[in-house]
Amino acid sequence: MKFRWLLALAVLLFVGFFAHAQSPMRHVNQQRLWATVEQLSEFGRPAGAGFEGGVTRVGFSEADLAARTWLMQLMREAGLTVRVDPAGNILGLRPGNENLPVLLFGSHIDSVPSGGNFDGDVGSLGALEVMRALNDGKMTTRHPLEMVIWTNEEGNHFSQWVGSPAAAGRLSAAVLERKDEEGKTLADWLRRYGQDPARLADARIKPGSLAAYLELHIEQGGVLDVSKRQIGVVQGIVGIHWWTCAATGFANHAGTTPMDGRQDALAVAARATLAVRDEVRAEAGRQVGTVGDVRVQPGAVNVIPGRVQFPVELRDLDAAKVLRIWARIEKRFAHIALEENVKLDCVTVEVDEPALTDVALQSDIRAAARAAGYTALDLPSGAGHDAQQVAHLAPIGMIFVPSRGGISHSPREYSSPTDVANGAEVLYRTVLLSDDRLNRKP
Amino acid sequence: MKFRWLLALAVLLFVGFFAHAQSPMRHVNQQRLWATVEQLSEFGRPAGAGFEGGVTRVGFSEADLAARTWLMQLMREAGLTVRVDPAGNILGLRPGNENLPVLLFGSHIDSVPSGGNFDGDVGSLGALEVMRALNDGKMTTRHPLEMVIWTNEEGNHFSQWVGSPAAAGRLSAAVLERKDEEGKTLADWLRRYGQDPARLADARIKPGSLAAYLELHIEQGGVLDVSKRQIGVVQGIVGIHWWTCAATGFANHAGTTPMDGRQDALAVAARATLAVRDEVRAEAGRQVGTVGDVRVQPGAVNVIPGRVQFPVELRDLDAAKVLRIWARIEKRFAHIALEENVKLDCVTVEVDEPALTDVALQSDIRAAARAAGYTALDLPSGAGHDAQQVAHLAPIGMIFVPSRGGISHSPREYSSPTDVANGAEVLYRTVLLSDDRLNRKP
Repeated sequence: MKFRWLLALAVLLFVGFFAHAQSPMRHVNQQRLWATVEQLSEFGRPAGAGFEGGVTRVGFSEADLAARTWLMQLMREAGLTVRVDPAGNILGLRPGNENLPVLLFGSHIDSVPSGGNFDGDVGSLGALEVMRALNDGKMTTRHPLEMVIWTNEEGNHFSQWVGSPAAAGRLSAAVLERKDEEGKTLADWLRRYGQDPARLADARIKPGSLAAYLELHIEQGGVLDVSKRQIGVVQGIVGIHWWTCAATGFANHAGTTPMDGRQDALAVAARATLAVRDEVRAEAGRQVGTVGDVRVQPGAVNVIPGRVQFPVELRDLDAAKVLRIWARIEKRFAHIALEENVKLDCVTVEVDEPALTDVALQSDIRAAARAAGYTALDLPSGAGHDAQQVAHLAPIGMIFVPSRGGISHSPREYSSPTDVANGAEVLYRTVLLSDDRLNRKP
Repeated sequence: MKFRWLLALAVLLFVGFFAHAQSPMRHVNQQRLWATVEQLSEFGRPAGAGFEGGVTRVGFSEADLAARTWLMQLMREAGLTVRVDPAGNILGLRPGNENLPVLLFGSHIDSVPSGGNFDGDVGSLGALEVMRALNDGKMTTRHPLEMVIWTNEEGNHFSQWVGSPAAAGRLSAAVLERKDEEGKTLADWLRRYGQDPARLADARIKPGSLAAYLELHIEQGGVLDVSKRQIGVVQGIVGIHWWTCAATGFANHAGTTPMDGRQDALAVAARATLAVRDEVRAEAGRQVGTVGDVRVQPGAVNVIPGRVQFPVELRDLDAAKVLRIWARIEKRFAHIALEENVKLDCVTVEVDEPALTDVALQSDIRAAARAAGYTALDLPSGAGHDAQQVAHLAPIGMIFVPSRGGISHSPREYSSPTDVANGAEVLYRTVLLSDDRLNRKP
């Protein structure tokens, strides 16, 4: 009896191994794709470091400019018609068979300072690889296909995305004259990179000219890594509501002020920090809430804190849920302030509305992953992406690949060559599925 | 019936008024004393400001040096034999009738930056006024009387008291070569002020040569002000135990890291801050505990804090009580760290043992206040004072006068001319009571 079980187990393992080895054919070329990831990493690589040393390729930097020139050359070699719009976005067109709106896909190649070689790069080079693979297979599509490299996604200048909001017609002209930490305006940068700032509004993509937008990206979180799934089907990009709060008590001598005579702003901030977490956890779901900093005045060992400032950030796919949680937090804050005899006020700093992905594009991605033999998981994107800007123009879809340890914005950011190629393969298949499905006469 | 009550009330008010108006005679001269307070305030007064503008007279500064020269002149004019010891302490001797140890009293005249005109000044000029009043009354004493102005009590250089620990023989020679924020050593400063640093050890007061030490000081807290008492009889100077704690979690993306996958160092610091307060409040008494600062890394709106540092300070007259409370806090910290999957470690930075005042000197002060017709209250000193150093040499006693609003180390620090003179009067009477009581043959 015992041997029968062992035999069965051996057969299962054997079959499992073969099932893996015989997974459906890849259209994208993993080796070619990974080679471009390595080549791109050289633009902005720290002196003396290797690929593992990460990259500093801030938008509009010399490293960024050189990388763009290199990538445009590869795009031309892939037969694309390359142009740069007045916001600096790079676009590469591959014609379609029918007179239909464009099916757009891409990402960005700028990085944060001391960033990694995957955030943005995977989606940008994945898009290039899809174009190359289509050429290899001599594939044609109904829709024109266009790949895009968005400008300054990381917002290291002006704390402001530039490319995708300009394309969405959501970048006001006022931003042109705002100075960054180097004292340069966006107008200065655009001019330096050969663009005419006066034409910025022309970067807007005409409503109706896009059939859909797809973006491949690393997850930047640990959900896929922990759950051992190969592909993430993004349900949407969470909305972000950011407040700044200030607790104002009374700074006093830590030795001579009795415990019951204190107006301790830090005790209030501590209670508030925990109240934020409690209320975020109080309902089911994937919402998150964070207090990421605390500034104490005067901030001495022997002085009761008189004033404490801290930010509160809430994120969810459902904006109403964020406001509902905030309403509960505000009630808690008012109660704490009253109990502690300390003022506690919060003001909204910024609101980014959630951007839901298109349900039909989600289905295309899910079907593409299934056909390619990859395990998939639906999940929200907790980080912001260019796709949320394009959502104002067209239906969007996003594909995630795993980030090892959930680490991002760090030289330790990593996705394996297989994971990167899996993502590009799913993008390839999704492009074809969506191309086939979209704009059919009923 | 009603009128009888009204009559009784009127009589009571009348008697009360007279009792107040006819309070026992003052030996000190309020007007003369207040004039010296105003004159001293000019040394280090901010440009263009008045008396209310506070003072910046940091130890060893030019303003401090000029004030010392001015005060030594007044001391000489009061008939005192003035000398400066190798630690820079100013001493002024008035001989006694018997061959007895010295009865010492005084305070300091250095201030914190942007400090007030009362912290230290009241006890220093109060000591001078006592000498002058004794001269006015042609009073003699059994013990030699000596007034003292201690060097650099506020510790604005080297974060270190200089004068009183040197007198107590508790200042190691190593401190001479420690550099302050201006790059100068204590040896440099002492030389600049005419002292020979090599002789620092000679500043030590010979054990047995002091009969007692008295110090008049502003409360620097609000207990007398709130309870409307005129004189505080100090039970002792609290011990201070100071720890630095660090919570080490993992910095991660605030958008992509689920709530249940976080190792949030700030949430831990928040819980720890509240645990400190809870445990301090958990027993009756006047102990205090403070978390006065928080430093967050990386400290960004959209990053979960990975490392947070904060100090914890506990103060009480009873060192065992402080350690008992800390033991409970440590237990709470360990529990919090375990629950949050975050490391939480604390190290002792400094321990100042409590210094109890002498019970007989407390009685002298209480009797002096009663005889002068002032209301008095026993209370601990939550702030540190030179007296706690002298406690290693001789019995100490301290007299507090009210601080308006409990405010100190601020230009808004204030005690009224009456309160200041009340304090000096109690010092005068205590000196005489103690002089009479101490060193009697049994």
